[in-house]
Amino acid sequence: MSAGNPTSLAEVATPALLLDRDRLEANIRRMEMRATQLGVELRPHLKTTKSVDVARLAAPSGRITVSTLREAEYFAQHGFRDIFYAVAINPQKLGRVGALLAQGVRLLISLDDPAVAAQVAQAGRALGLVFPVMIEIDSGEERSGVDAASPDLLAIVDALRSGAQVAGVFTHGGHSYLGRSIEEHQAVAEQERVAVTTAAARLRAHGCGNDLIVSLGSTPTVNHARNLTGVTEARPGVYMVYDLFQWDVGACGPDDLALSVLTSVIGQHPSRSQLVIDAGAIALSKDLGTHGPEDHAVPAYGLIADAQTGQLIADLHVHTVYQEHGIVRSQRPIDFSAFPVGRQLRVYMNHACLTAAAFDQFHVVQADNPEIALWDRVNGW
Amino acid sequence: MSAGNPTSLAEVATPALLLDRDRLEANIRRMEMRATQLGVELRPHLKTTKSVDVARLAAPSGRITVSTLREAEYFAQHGFRDIFYAVAINPQKLGRVGALLAQGVRLLISLDDPAVAAQVAQAGRALGLVFPVMIEIDSGEERSGVDAASPDLLAIVDALRSGAQVAGVFTHGGHSYLGRSIEEHQAVAEQERVAVTTAAARLRAHGCGNDLIVSLGSTPTVNHARNLTGVTEARPGVYMVYDLFQWDVGACGPDDLALSVLTSVIGQHPSRSQLVIDAGAIALSKDLGTHGPEDHAVPAYGLIADAQTGQLIADLHVHTVYQEHGIVRSQRPIDFSAFPVGRQLRVYMNHACLTAAAFDQFHVVQADNPEIALWDRVNGW
Repeated sequence: MSAGNPTSLAEVATPALLLDRDRLEANIRRMEMRATQLGVELRPHLKTTKSVDVARLAAPSGRITVSTLREAEYFAQHGFRDIFYAVAINPQKLGRVGALLAQGVRLLISLDDPAVAAQVAQAGRALGLVFPVMIEIDSGEERSGVDAASPDLLAIVDALRSGAQVAGVFTHGGHSYLGRSIEEHQAVAEQERVAVTTAAARLRAHGCGNDLIVSLGSTPTVNHARNLTGVTEARPGVYMVYDLFQWDVGACGPDDLALSVLTSVIGQHPSRSQLVIDAGAIALSKDLGTHGPEDHAVPAYGLIADAQTGQLIADLHVHTVYQEHGIVRSQRPIDFSAFPVGRQLRVYMNHACLTAAAFDQFHVVQADNPEIALWDRVNGW
Repeated sequence: MSAGNPTSLAEVATPALLLDRDRLEANIRRMEMRATQLGVELRPHLKTTKSVDVARLAAPSGRITVSTLREAEYFAQHGFRDIFYAVAINPQKLGRVGALLAQGVRLLISLDDPAVAAQVAQAGRALGLVFPVMIEIDSGEERSGVDAASPDLLAIVDALRSGAQVAGVFTHGGHSYLGRSIEEHQAVAEQERVAVTTAAARLRAHGCGNDLIVSLGSTPTVNHARNLTGVTEARPGVYMVYDLFQWDVGACGPDDLALSVLTSVIGQHPSRSQLVIDAGAIALSKDLGTHGPEDHAVPAYGLIADAQTGQLIADLHVHTVYQEHGIVRSQRPIDFSAFPVGRQLRVYMNHACLTAAAFDQFHVVQADNPEIALWDRVNGW
């Protein structure tokens, strides 16, 4: 590694995680306009980018969502004070949550089980803290969450008296990713809206007050929702950078892809009609799309683009991945003279969240800025 | 995180990467016996564990193989002086390689292309160094490497005069993973042996001297090779910890699985017959086995075991993974009272190399030692 920041891609050791700042900022602006149209606040999900530099652009309000407690600790360290940790709390972690609350961070935790609610309230009383709790509602994905109509919903509320308080309700319509049409995304967005507003109405009738957070969201549902009446905030995340899967489900176009892996050709094998690159299963992940191979319309593990322009190259794609090797093929004959060993390329990945997790920093490129900025990321738990 | 090392699993924040030291050491001993039987030296591949503590147990000779230059730098920092970086060199990285050589590390690099050989030799002359080079031979996997009979083999040797020298030849019979019987593994081992000994004989006849390294290996081929006459060293790696895929191809049994992910139940959903755990796609990877879904006999993304004993629990398995959620199901009815939220479990993973890459340390457990040691790992490039 050189001492200063690199000023050309040629100086960047590959594989590296490349972030196109112009596209990032355009994606952020577009989602902010959608939120304004829909009349909801954004609480952007930082699970994809896990970067304070990205968070400052995407969440000027300071209101963010995270997927791990380590992310919460990292963002709190960098001054964020309104953080929603949107994975069901493991009671083992309440000590770390309490430490953040004691520092003045409003760390919202989530749960969907009356027994856990009782443990949280008890821990709050023992620590002399009040845990702010978001109750998870299932809106059809069947991953986690209670039914909006379930008796458990009110049992949770009852268990949260003292030591904890109900901050709101939330859902994630992850089954929107099964959809391939705008109509399907609209339908899931409406399922989400009905689920959380129904739950919120039951909570209000049960004495929970009128300032509940009513939260939903995935990138496709927020992009396509017709109306979000009764909802206060949305939590899309991958929209900041997008990926091939999002393109595949119609959430973005190819010019919105802000994240790629910078790689180098390390082998040429004309007799096998393939190139070898230094981005393999660790650098790209083996994700074939969020819900598995049966939904996978994009060939294999990524699409190849020019390193400088970011433009896709014919139909060059990553056909196979080994731990550190990627095999690149094309349906058409490859002009091997154009791809000597050492040539850098970009790979657009299937699933940005998993690919990014292999890297501890972004190399940030921008059209009118020759210097490549380095932005850190936080991985782990 | 607490200050001292944890002395019980209950203190370990989940998800965490758990290494069973007793199984690790037994796996290492067994492979050492195989190498002795076969009359070859081991140069263990550290791409799976990426840990100096593991390397000290598995490679008392100090002779190791790595998959990234960052691993080479990390092991060199910790005193290792005979390191083979077994992924085709990107000429961009010769400066970092040269820095290690200048420190007295014998860092073997690899290539399979006469044009790259010429660049390496030229870089060596420019830096006043001699790069030791292993030439990669393809033994049937068709990933990288030249044919043992190819004119390119001698063209590479000719290009390496001055500034570089031929240290030996190597191959990796990764297509052994396509095999499911001992006979198939034996056949691939023999293909590997014939490829590298043929290439070595051609090199000797071409004036390369008689002290060439003749190197091969994957865990299944070394486990099952009938004889390795003419081979000097073998580079298996995953044998140290094994995984479900290795079990699936017959390279190990369930009691040899030394690596697992410690996880916690974070949700119970009897109406959906599923549990939710806090190990998802990042903690487990989305690998369905090394060569993709069509070869995948093990259900889904991992098998569930008791956290304390490491014994598999009925047929509980990880059916689906989301970024931070794992969905656990069973073919039989689940006794939910046995799996309250907060209960810790182990997950044996499909592919140890990819799962381990999500973690920056191991939590090391041992039958007769109550203290859980923390061993670091090096990720990235």
